[in-house]
Amino acid sequence: MLIVGERLNTSRSAAAAMVAAKDKEAVQREAARQVEAGAQYVDLNAGTFADREPEMLRWLVDAVREAVSAPLCLDSPSPTALRAALEACREGGGPKPLINSITGEKARFSAVLPLVREFGAAVVALCLDDAGMPGTADEAVAKGTRLIEDLLAAGVAADDIYVDPLARSIGSDAASGTAALETIRRLRAAYPQVHAICGLSNISFGLPRRSLINRTFLVAAMAAGLDAVICDPLDRQLMAALIAAEAVLGRDRHLARYLKAYRQGRLDQV
Amino acid sequence: MLIVGERLNTSRSAAAAMVAAKDKEAVQREAARQVEAGAQYVDLNAGTFADREPEMLRWLVDAVREAVSAPLCLDSPSPTALRAALEACREGGGPKPLINSITGEKARFSAVLPLVREFGAAVVALCLDDAGMPGTADEAVAKGTRLIEDLLAAGVAADDIYVDPLARSIGSDAASGTAALETIRRLRAAYPQVHAICGLSNISFGLPRRSLINRTFLVAAMAAGLDAVICDPLDRQLMAALIAAEAVLGRDRHLARYLKAYRQGRLDQV
Repeated sequence: MLIVGERLNTSRSAAAAMVAAKDKEAVQREAARQVEAGAQYVDLNAGTFADREPEMLRWLVDAVREAVSAPLCLDSPSPTALRAALEACREGGGPKPLINSITGEKARFSAVLPLVREFGAAVVALCLDDAGMPGTADEAVAKGTRLIEDLLAAGVAADDIYVDPLARSIGSDAASGTAALETIRRLRAAYPQVHAICGLSNISFGLPRRSLINRTFLVAAMAAGLDAVICDPLDRQLMAALIAAEAVLGRDRHLARYLKAYRQGRLDQV
Repeated sequence: MLIVGERLNTSRSAAAAMVAAKDKEAVQREAARQVEAGAQYVDLNAGTFADREPEMLRWLVDAVREAVSAPLCLDSPSPTALRAALEACREGGGPKPLINSITGEKARFSAVLPLVREFGAAVVALCLDDAGMPGTADEAVAKGTRLIEDLLAAGVAADDIYVDPLARSIGSDAASGTAALETIRRLRAAYPQVHAICGLSNISFGLPRRSLINRTFLVAAMAAGLDAVICDPLDRQLMAALIAAEAVLGRDRHLARYLKAYRQGRLDQV
């Protein structure tokens, strides 16, 4: 399971304060804590800074790359901000970044695709196009399929594509969880080398005990084929559910990771 | 989701002590607590009493029926003990009991089937026959299919059959979780009116943090189509996972049960 740590996102007030103050030490500590807790990628998002987003995202990249060697997930809809961040990554000579995200919207697709190719990046592909968010699983699968086909036709490797079903909150649509699960199952069956990724926070929007819903959905989504997740790796309960899910789903040979996590105390108080 | 409370089983030392002492009040309190916590059926098992099992199981039935109106799950491989318990249920005129269990083993099948028919009971059908426990999903599906077909041919209603994939511990076979999930998925697809049930304790046998594994497997199994479970309804974390799973799997219209459980404090400290 590929874990992308989501905490350095300026839509979180703590992260916004660190970035606004250019508090490099705090940002580096937050990145290091996420890696220590199990994140393989660190998501960086400076979306709340509007015009200054490219400068701030670039600053974030430089700050975090000094502290951790993990690859970065560059999280912005803005091609300008993405380019600034990608250039910072390339100058540092670090591992291949993950662009978060491309969609099937014509303008965004044609602006982000050249960045994916120029920088040899992996990319999160949201099941979304100019007709909007998907309503049903059939719609999400159709949007996802078109996007995957377009990326493959443009020479992006299947293994570099992370398709996201865009689950909406079950608070506004009780069927959105099952639609997302079916989308994951069908897209992974059709494209076994393409990854399925999911941001976990949407599914529980507006509901109480969001962490409980998020981790429960995560287990069901992993059973459907999800192999990457954007989440808070400091959420102990979530990480314990993830580790246990890998064990029950046969993805943890000899239960080595489960038993190691137990010995490290990561499964305590959950 | 149909919840069968498993605590009145004499393989648990507390239950064995209550039954050995014929402590009716303690047994009734244990039954009532399980129903209060969400159990729709109360499992009764006096298997540790050997020759005295029929007498003790009958005593348990009488004691519990005085305290709760929930139907009972009569848990024994012994036709003699089952008959004693079924007669006690019938004399009381209560709801249809669930026999736990029948298998494809020739001797057991031919001894238990007449009880299912005579008493109009529902029945748990284990994917097990004279060739032993299933190894792979293919074997479990084959054993389950034969058993379901034999029960249907004998006139048992599909809705009265609860098929159990017999998940073995992932501690001894890392693939046993996925095999059980696939068995559930395939049998439910082939027989949509037959229920799928699972005892939750085997899957984690011999491993640390069993409750974490059990509830994680429960969520994955519900996503695969499990609609009944034999478990400890006093395990708050397990019940919270079950309630959240119904919400994310679209089985809780308007999230009414999730929000009610939240208001009742059942999702606190999980």
